[in-house]
Amino acid sequence: MKILILNGPNLNLLGTREKSIYGAESFDQYFEKLKHIFPDFTLEYFQSNIEGELINKIHELRFLFDGIVLNAAAYTHTSVAIRDAIAAVDLPVIEVHISNVHKREAFRHTSLISASCVGVIAGFGLDSYRLGLEALSKIIENK
Amino acid sequence: MKILILNGPNLNLLGTREKSIYGAESFDQYFEKLKHIFPDFTLEYFQSNIEGELINKIHELRFLFDGIVLNAAAYTHTSVAIRDAIAAVDLPVIEVHISNVHKREAFRHTSLISASCVGVIAGFGLDSYRLGLEALSKIIENK
Amino acid sequence: MKILILNGPNLNLLGTREKSIYGAESFDQYFEKLKHIFPDFTLEYFQSNIEGELINKIHELRFLFDGIVLNAAAYTHTSVAIRDAIAAVDLPVIEVHISNVHKREAFRHTSLISASCVGVIAGFGLDSYRLGLEALSKIIENK
Amino acid sequence: MKILILNGPNLNLLGTREKSIYGAESFDQYFEKLKHIFPDFTLEYFQSNIEGELINKIHELRFLFDGIVLNAAAYTHTSVAIRDAIAAVDLPVIEVHISNVHKREAFRHTSLISASCVGVIAGFGLDSYRLGLEALSKIIENK
Amino acid sequence: MKILILNGPNLNLLGTREKSIYGAESFDQYFEKLKHIFPDFTLEYFQSNIEGELINKIHELRFLFDGIVLNAAAYTHTSVAIRDAIAAVDLPVIEVHISNVHKREAFRHTSLISASCVGVIAGFGLDSYRLGLEALSKIIENK
Amino acid sequence: MKILILNGPNLNLLGTREKSIYGAESFDQYFEKLKHIFPDFTLEYFQSNIEGELINKIHELRFLFDGIVLNAAAYTHTSVAIRDAIAAVDLPVIEVHISNVHKREAFRHTSLISASCVGVIAGFGLDSYRLGLEALSKIIENK
Amino acid sequence: MKILILNGPNLNLLGTREKSIYGAESFDQYFEKLKHIFPDFTLEYFQSNIEGELINKIHELRFLFDGIVLNAAAYTHTSVAIRDAIAAVDLPVIEVHISNVHKREAFRHTSLISASCVGVIAGFGLDSYRLGLEALSKIIENK
Amino acid sequence: MKILILNGPNLNLLGTREKSIYGAESFDQYFEKLKHIFPDFTLEYFQSNIEGELINKIHELRFLFDGIVLNAAAYTHTSVAIRDAIAAVDLPVIEVHISNVHKREAFRHTSLISASCVGVIAGFGLDSYRLGLEALSKIIENK
Amino acid sequence: MKILILNGPNLNLLGTREKSIYGAESFDQYFEKLKHIFPDFTLEYFQSNIEGELINKIHELRFLFDGIVLNAAAYTHTSVAIRDAIAAVDLPVIEVHISNVHKREAFRHTSLISASCVGVIAGFGLDSYRLGLEALSKIIENK
Amino acid sequence: MKILILNGPNLNLLGTREKSIYGAESFDQYFEKLKHIFPDFTLEYFQSNIEGELINKIHELRFLFDGIVLNAAAYTHTSVAIRDAIAAVDLPVIEVHISNVHKREAFRHTSLISASCVGVIAGFGLDSYRLGLEALSKIIENK
Amino acid sequence: MKILILNGPNLNLLGTREKSIYGAESFDQYFEKLKHIFPDFTLEYFQSNIEGELINKIHELRFLFDGIVLNAAAYTHTSVAIRDAIAAVDLPVIEVHISNVHKREAFRHTSLISASCVGVIAGFGLDSYRLGLEALSKIIENK
Amino acid sequence: MKILILNGPNLNLLGTREKSIYGAESFDQYFEKLKHIFPDFTLEYFQSNIEGELINKIHELRFLFDGIVLNAAAYTHTSVAIRDAIAAVDLPVIEVHISNVHKREAFRHTSLISASCVGVIAGFGLDSYRLGLEALSKIIENK
Repeated sequence: MKILILNGPNLNLLGTREKSIYGAESFDQYFEKLKHIFPDFTLEYFQSNIEGELINKIHELRFLFDGIVLNAAAYTHTSVAIRDAIAAVDLPVIEVHISNVHKREAFRHTSLISASCVGVIAGFGLDSYRLGLEALSKIIENK
Repeated sequence: MKILILNGPNLNLLGTREKSIYGAESFDQYFEKLKHIFPDFTLEYFQSNIEGELINKIHELRFLFDGIVLNAAAYTHTSVAIRDAIAAVDLPVIEVHISNVHKREAFRHTSLISASCVGVIAGFGLDSYRLGLEALSKIIENK
Repeated sequence: MKILILNGPNLNLLGTREKSIYGAESFDQYFEKLKHIFPDFTLEYFQSNIEGELINKIHELRFLFDGIVLNAAAYTHTSVAIRDAIAAVDLPVIEVHISNVHKREAFRHTSLISASCVGVIAGFGLDSYRLGLEALSKIIENK
Repeated sequence: MKILILNGPNLNLLGTREKSIYGAESFDQYFEKLKHIFPDFTLEYFQSNIEGELINKIHELRFLFDGIVLNAAAYTHTSVAIRDAIAAVDLPVIEVHISNVHKREAFRHTSLISASCVGVIAGFGLDSYRLGLEALSKIIENK
Repeated sequence: MKILILNGPNLNLLGTREKSIYGAESFDQYFEKLKHIFPDFTLEYFQSNIEGELINKIHELRFLFDGIVLNAAAYTHTSVAIRDAIAAVDLPVIEVHISNVHKREAFRHTSLISASCVGVIAGFGLDSYRLGLEALSKIIENK
Repeated sequence: MKILILNGPNLNLLGTREKSIYGAESFDQYFEKLKHIFPDFTLEYFQSNIEGELINKIHELRFLFDGIVLNAAAYTHTSVAIRDAIAAVDLPVIEVHISNVHKREAFRHTSLISASCVGVIAGFGLDSYRLGLEALSKIIENK
Repeated sequence: MKILILNGPNLNLLGTREKSIYGAESFDQYFEKLKHIFPDFTLEYFQSNIEGELINKIHELRFLFDGIVLNAAAYTHTSVAIRDAIAAVDLPVIEVHISNVHKREAFRHTSLISASCVGVIAGFGLDSYRLGLEALSKIIENK
Repeated sequence: MKILILNGPNLNLLGTREKSIYGAESFDQYFEKLKHIFPDFTLEYFQSNIEGELINKIHELRFLFDGIVLNAAAYTHTSVAIRDAIAAVDLPVIEVHISNVHKREAFRHTSLISASCVGVIAGFGLDSYRLGLEALSKIIENK
Repeated sequence: MKILILNGPNLNLLGTREKSIYGAESFDQYFEKLKHIFPDFTLEYFQSNIEGELINKIHELRFLFDGIVLNAAAYTHTSVAIRDAIAAVDLPVIEVHISNVHKREAFRHTSLISASCVGVIAGFGLDSYRLGLEALSKIIENK
Repeated sequence: MKILILNGPNLNLLGTREKSIYGAESFDQYFEKLKHIFPDFTLEYFQSNIEGELINKIHELRFLFDGIVLNAAAYTHTSVAIRDAIAAVDLPVIEVHISNVHKREAFRHTSLISASCVGVIAGFGLDSYRLGLEALSKIIENK
Repeated sequence: MKILILNGPNLNLLGTREKSIYGAESFDQYFEKLKHIFPDFTLEYFQSNIEGELINKIHELRFLFDGIVLNAAAYTHTSVAIRDAIAAVDLPVIEVHISNVHKREAFRHTSLISASCVGVIAGFGLDSYRLGLEALSKIIENK
Repeated sequence: MKILILNGPNLNLLGTREKSIYGAESFDQYFEKLKHIFPDFTLEYFQSNIEGELINKIHELRFLFDGIVLNAAAYTHTSVAIRDAIAAVDLPVIEVHISNVHKREAFRHTSLISASCVGVIAGFGLDSYRLGLEALSKIIENK
């Protein structure tokens, strides 16, 4: 099973900043842990601050992977283009968020992306990614 | 670890109706499976169509359980009272939904409850409950 | 033909209060009249002030009755849960109102329930129930 | 008892188009049936696609008829002028709709006309007209 | 000076109905008075319940008259087409209303027409027309 | 007949500034003209930039005058207090505006004051005041 | 004088939780104090988390009591049914809140219930109940 | 190929008024040009200021023509009835506008008609009609 | 204990006008009564129709008094400046209203001031002031 | 005549995905056809998923080309930056869409870009591009 | 160069209250510093809590000064009258705020005044005034 | 002191286009001037039309610079991602705009970025940058 973890803007700073919201671990460290938790999966990881590069990546890998765990971060609330990219490929995509967006500013309560994803997992810290992989593996198995 | 699964209105009909949205399995059957998946947990299950009974249950069990997996169903969108009940107890509560509410009618896109829960899991069918338990166990461990 | 008349909150006070809006007849008196007008029907009548009890009743009787005439009263404007209960059962449900809700406060102009009912009859006093039964009998015949 | 049935825009096409929404019967055929169902009534029927002609007809007949069953169709949602015409005459007017407008597009959920009518009947196919006549006869009797 | 008084829907009923709002005088009687008050003007009067006929009249008379006193009644609140007709002709148009629309229902507080008229006079009963003629004569003189 | 002309904020600058909107005449010059046009009236004139002074003036003169022609200028759109002052006295008050407020910024399209005035006259330049006096004299005569 | 104190959802937890908002005293302790402050009153106290039970209680006691002090808590913002229950009985009802709801989340700033109560008292901690009783006694005396 | 060009309110004035927005050519002159550009088409042209006459024309010609190029002008923004007429006939309808409506007042930015048309062409002056015919011919060919 | 009663615009007319809403007693008469009810308090009373004078008074007295009972009347709904004045001083301020503002026009349902006051008392006629003093004395005692 | 066809996000997938909405032809194939239809034009084609690259391209080519046919796809609804880029260059830009955006989700009904383009063509499948070129050639000729 | 610094409501309390938002320095102390920083300017300072006095001051000094640095404080969000006063005089006016209003309550995010000022400076503590003077001197020089 | 000036989309065209809004000077010319005005600062300048590149630049330089003067141009109104980038770094960021955005289209009146910046300076032409540097130097000094 080949799964892509796709991270949106500012998530490259994870672990170094705003630790009260996002925690102190870098995503690279966490990614190593994830590989140990899911030894049977081929996991890949890509991050970009550029909306269109996230779309490019979704297009490129659409025949090579079985599913995507996507944290679109700030683009969640503003990008119709990512929504359309997800709708345009056949892969199951899981939307994840580290923080519980519903506890934050009002403009973070609406997602343009949720309706084209399979489901949403939000608020469990980095553990949201693990739960996303869990959910995805079940979906791919059931196909 | 003692965990309560709390289901809101109309979820007693699960498995018998609107199978295209909610699937064909009854919650009782699924609950048996859950107990096998989490043999170390003490799981209990309560369902009510009455908003206030859900609140009563949260109050009653607040010193007896370690956490709640809550599918408030239709009350998700209309109940300030359940929101307040969650805020009033010290237990971690995970909000789950069987369907991806963001793909349905607009009035289902807003949740009055999310902001007082730890996190949200939506759209994975009955598997949302399993993921909720996974998430909850991690949270309780880390306390 | 077995038909349930289901009345929501405060309708137990009918005939004793706010007569300028709702008229001076109690529902029990009127119910006797209805039975004479429809001698071939088995009519039953249930009222509750508790949202969840109305849902319970819809669930319980869903295989025993041929249709429901529902006056959800104040819950018309606030209950997603009753909407879902109606959508979850196979019975035809007719929404009735004693007063013309469009002549009253603005928050009474929207109904959360209408979209899951067959149709709506509002503004004819208690005669709205008779018209609801008329409408329902035609629908059941045509099945 | 003299009653006018007044139909608004596009209802002249009834029975020939969009049968999935409006049914396959033309209004002329149905009108013959209505005359048989209410042999004691003098029924007249007028249809126009022109907003102002509907208003003219309401004015003309206001001393000659005992009531109106009105399906204003699309003008229901846009015509303050028809609302004012109804308010300006002493006749009881019943608003009817063939389809359940609450199941359709959002702009069909609000009616500018309801507040000046006695009551509303919607969603019962052509049977909405029969129910409208039933309701009207009761109202006229009780005067 | 040639001036057209143009009346919109339901104003033909003036004096016979809703006297508490509009007064007991018919417009024909009042029109005779107006001719006596302004002996030097050539006044003409046209009423229609049909939106497009009001537009036609504005088009037809645009080179024959010096100005228009317009009571668009209910179309005030819904007609972009009359707004465009006024904008399309070179005549000064005065918007008048018999009642103070700001004391009535909220949907009567907005006018689609005001922005293409010279000015607005509302709330003085039939005297609004006389004031409109006064205002218009001043404007035409100053050209 | 004793009538007060009451002018709100910035109207003291009339004739010296923004002549394209308000014209080149000062209100003092125009006020002299008004006295000639209405020789039988006792006209008085008061202007203030202070909301509360306008209210004080309305209170003070409420038994001494027969009516008020009020141009509340910018306070038209923001002052509930002036609205309440008008409602609290028995005098007929006519709202006037020099410019057609409906052709200007959106926040000038709503008036908090109109509903407590007899009527509104807007858009005729300084002639709006003359028309206001005309209207007022008729109203006072008819009492 | 017989007065009912009616408490809505989650108020049974008073004194044990969220003390920063609601204080550390339980309602039972406070109720004893109230009885001492008003020795001439017959005070009764009822709490429920179930919306319909609050309505039932209002109905039951409507001929037995002289007035109600109501803290509808979360139902304040969502219950048309309680509003209708208050409107349907002849008792004076005083709406009270422990916290100043205007300092909290925006959805707590609107009350569906206020318009059918005599008046509102909010923000004085438990002392709001005492003030409510004070207010009520005055109203009953003046009847 | 038989195609109807249908023009809404005020378009009869084309070429004589508001030339800065709509150009200096009358529609009759332009219509002659169109016939030369499309010699193989049978083109007919109808204009009315009356909403219902536009609907009547759509109904009448629905079996005689292959498609419609419709400029509903001001009715674009207010007519549910024209929308329904288009939905009720099987002809492809192309919505055209002379001006780019998105550069004008905000109320011209929404169209009630677009969703029942095949497509929209706006902003190219009279050339919008030629483009509409081009588009329509392609659609009819591909049937 | 030194307490200021601060009254906003139009309240100087109390007892002479709109008696159906505000009662027939003047505030001076009532103020005498208040002094008898609270013999141990030093009460002072100030009224102004000028928003800024109310602010000046709050500033002036902020070290001389122990609390304020404020009826900001119409300024309740429009004054951010009074809100800021209250927030800027250390005195407890109680917001009172004579009428139940929630039963009146919609624009009276929102208060800009409540969030910076300790609490709100509305709807008890002049008795609202007595209750405000009661509440205030308790708060000052508990400091 | 040199014209740029500029395609926004996800349009590189054209012909391979969501064929029910966008058709089965790739844009490269279609582009060859366009070159045959317009043999006298120099056509160039650029696609990017990155908002800023579309802006860069508009800047680069602003002196080298005579006009742009732009399908901004998802960025139509979210990009003020592309709107500003179009406003900043002197080239005529035609907005085209393959699907009729007004038949799709509500957030696709508003365009941030239309107001800075010459005109809009939407809903004709790939033929929208040909129509866009037709329109553009006319505009450039008329310069 | 003669420049007026105009301060709105509650700014007289600067330095004594709410120091966490506004700092600990009084405006008088700061004003002395400003005079040292700009030795070549004639600076004057005026503060009022009364909206109309601020307007009076703008009127009075409009021929005597070269520009205004205005902190309208709370009136920024509610005063159309100050907006109109600025528009009515020929002086350049700079809007300044001590705090970053965009970080505070939502009603402080909109300014009625900005559109009639040259520019806005907000969020730099008292230094906003110095920056405002800097900006103003540049503008006056460039005239 | 090391300060980055960061310019968003379309600002590379400064001085060559839309001179009525943005002036005739290129940013490069102006940047030279700035270096002369602030000889003690190390100034660097970066412009990009790509949202994500602006974010990358903020990340890269966050330990190397003392502050940022940011003109996010069109992204001001649409980019949550830039807002988050600013919040994620410890540098003081000043938001500047060349034009007074409050005088332009309504969608330019709201900024997603302001709340995470120290302060805002808008409307002074290129001088806004100088003022931004002034403000920033004061802030860095005071650290």
